[in-house]
Amino acid sequence: MSDDSFNYPIVKNGTQQVRNLLLEFINHNNSEVELAITEMITAGGKMLRPAMFLLFNEFGNQAKNDDKLIKIAASLEILHMATLIHDDIVDDSPLRRGVPSIQTNMGKDIAVYAGDLLFTKFFQLINETMNGTEFMQINANAMEQILTGELVQKANRFNYHNPVEVYLDTVSGKTAELFRLACLEGAHFGGAPTEVTQLASEIGQNIGIAFQINDDILDYTSDPKTLKKPILEDLSMGVYTLPLLLAIQTDPTKFEVLTDKNHALTASDVEAIVFHVKQLGGLDRAVEYARSYTNQAEKLIAQLPAGQPKIVLAKVIKQMLTRKY
Amino acid sequence: MSDDSFNYPIVKNGTQQVRNLLLEFINHNNSEVELAITEMITAGGKMLRPAMFLLFNEFGNQAKNDDKLIKIAASLEILHMATLIHDDIVDDSPLRRGVPSIQTNMGKDIAVYAGDLLFTKFFQLINETMNGTEFMQINANAMEQILTGELVQKANRFNYHNPVEVYLDTVSGKTAELFRLACLEGAHFGGAPTEVTQLASEIGQNIGIAFQINDDILDYTSDPKTLKKPILEDLSMGVYTLPLLLAIQTDPTKFEVLTDKNHALTASDVEAIVFHVKQLGGLDRAVEYARSYTNQAEKLIAQLPAGQPKIVLAKVIKQMLTRKY
Repeated sequence: MSDDSFNYPIVKNGTQQVRNLLLEFINHNNSEVELAITEMITAGGKMLRPAMFLLFNEFGNQAKNDDKLIKIAASLEILHMATLIHDDIVDDSPLRRGVPSIQTNMGKDIAVYAGDLLFTKFFQLINETMNGTEFMQINANAMEQILTGELVQKANRFNYHNPVEVYLDTVSGKTAELFRLACLEGAHFGGAPTEVTQLASEIGQNIGIAFQINDDILDYTSDPKTLKKPILEDLSMGVYTLPLLLAIQTDPTKFEVLTDKNHALTASDVEAIVFHVKQLGGLDRAVEYARSYTNQAEKLIAQLPAGQPKIVLAKVIKQMLTRKY
Repeated sequence: MSDDSFNYPIVKNGTQQVRNLLLEFINHNNSEVELAITEMITAGGKMLRPAMFLLFNEFGNQAKNDDKLIKIAASLEILHMATLIHDDIVDDSPLRRGVPSIQTNMGKDIAVYAGDLLFTKFFQLINETMNGTEFMQINANAMEQILTGELVQKANRFNYHNPVEVYLDTVSGKTAELFRLACLEGAHFGGAPTEVTQLASEIGQNIGIAFQINDDILDYTSDPKTLKKPILEDLSMGVYTLPLLLAIQTDPTKFEVLTDKNHALTASDVEAIVFHVKQLGGLDRAVEYARSYTNQAEKLIAQLPAGQPKIVLAKVIKQMLTRKY
C-alpha cells in the first residue's frame, strides 16, 4: 500500500509524532545497538499499526494526539520492530524495509540486543501508560500470541501438507494479533464506548489476517524481475504460504521437488512452482480467502457510528486490502 | 558455591517450588523452544536469585512461600535465564550449566525465541503479581540496566585500556542489578519495614558485584586442566576482566599479544597471560576489590534486625563470597 492510504491529517501528524518519540526514546548512549535501531526507524516503514491506533482514537472523546496516546501508538511500533528484528535472525533475512537487515549489516549479536532493547522499551512505555489496568495483561498476552504464531510457523516448516487451518493460526498470531491490539487500544484509550472497542478488536483481527494473506499473494504476483527472490527465500526456508498450500491440496504431484529436502531449489524450480501455483488456482483461491476476511472487516466497520473517521477507515481498508494482483 | 549454602529449610523448599512452577509455566505445546528451556531448568542452576529473594522474605511478616511470593521468585530466575540464553548467542558459548547451551544444541533460532518466550513469561508473572504498583517500573528499569551492562561490555571488547570503573559499571548492570532486585523485592514483598527494604537493595548490589568479581577471579585460578578453556574464550572474544585489567595497568608491555587482533590466541599465549596476571598482582588486587564489596555487604547486614534470617544470611554471604582462590 502507498503511504497515502492514511492521508488523513490527524493520523499523518500522529505518526510523525510517533516517529519523533521513537527516535528520542531510543537514543541515549549512541551505542551500536541504538544506531542500528535508529537507522531502521529512519529507513521508513509505514507505521501501519500506530496509524490504525490513531484512526480508532477518532471514535472516542479523548483529546487527540496527547502524550499518552502517542506513547501507546509508539509501543505498538516498538513491539512490531522487536519481533521483525528477531525474525530476521531466525530467517537469515538479508533485507528489511529495502535496506540490509540489522543482522546482515551489524551481525547477529547486535540484532539480538536490538530486539531485547526494544522489548525493554515496550515494557517501559506500557508501564508508563497502563500500569494498574487490565491492559497490562492484554499486552502480555498479545506478546505471547505473536511469539506463538512465529513458533507454530517454525514448527511447520517444510510441512508439505500443512493444513490451511494451521496457516491461518500462524497468521492470526504473528500478524493479526498486533493489528487487533492496535485497533482495540485505539478505541479504548481514545475513549470510545465499549461496543466500539469490541468492534475495533474484531475489525483489527480480520484486517490483520487479510493483510498477511495479501502479502503472501504478492510474493507470487509481483514484478517478475523481483519475483523470484522473496519466494525463493521463503521456499528454501520451508515457509509455505496460502497460495502454495492450496495448490498442493489440488495436485501434490506437481510439487514433489519440495519434498526432497536435500535438493537446493534453483531459479527454474521456483519458476515451475509459481507456474503450477497459478495454474492450479492456488492464487485465485487465496484471493478468495483474503476477500472473505476483508468483507468481514467491512461488515463490522458498517456497524461503527457514522462520521468522518468511519468514512476514512472504510477507504483505508479498501486501499490496503484490495491491491491489484 | 555449593548448593548447601542455602541449606535453610524455607529457602530450600521455596526454590524447589520455584523450579516446579517454572516447569509447569513453560510447558504448553511441547514445542522445541519449550523443550530447550525445560532442559535448561532441569540441568540445574543454583537458583541464587530466587534463594536471595526467599531469604529476604524472612525479614517480613508475610505468610511465607505463598503463591505470589513463589511467582515473584520465579520471575527473577526467568529474567536471568532469558539474558543467559541471549548472551550465549552473542558470545557463541558452547556450554551453559555444564551442558551444551541452547544455541549450540538447537541452533540460534531456537535460542532467540527461547529468550523471547522467557521475556514474555517474565512480563506475565510481573503483571500477575505487581500490576498497579511502582514495582512494574522498577522491574522495567532493572531489565534496562541489565541490558545496558551487556551493551557496555560489548562496546568495550578488545579495549586493552578499559578502565576499572567501566568494568565495575558493566558488572553493576549485567550481574548486580538482578541481585539487587532479588533482595529488594524479597524484603518488600515479604512485608519487611522500609529501612530493611532499603538495606536489602544495597546488600544485593554489593553481593552482586562481589559475586561477579569472584567469578572472574575463578577463571584464572581454577583447576589448570579446565583453566584454559573459559579464559581462552573470554580473551578471544575480547572480554578482559578485572584481574587482567589490573595487571595491564601495572605493566602493559607484558600483554602486547592482546593488541594484535589478527593473532588468534594459542594455549601457550593464554598460559603466558595467566602467568603475568598472577605475577603482576592482578589476582591479588582483584581479590581486594571483591573483599571490599563483601565487607560492605557485611556491614550492611550487621544493620539488619537480629534473628535467624540474619544469621543465615551472614553465613551464606561468607560461603558465597569467600571461595578459596
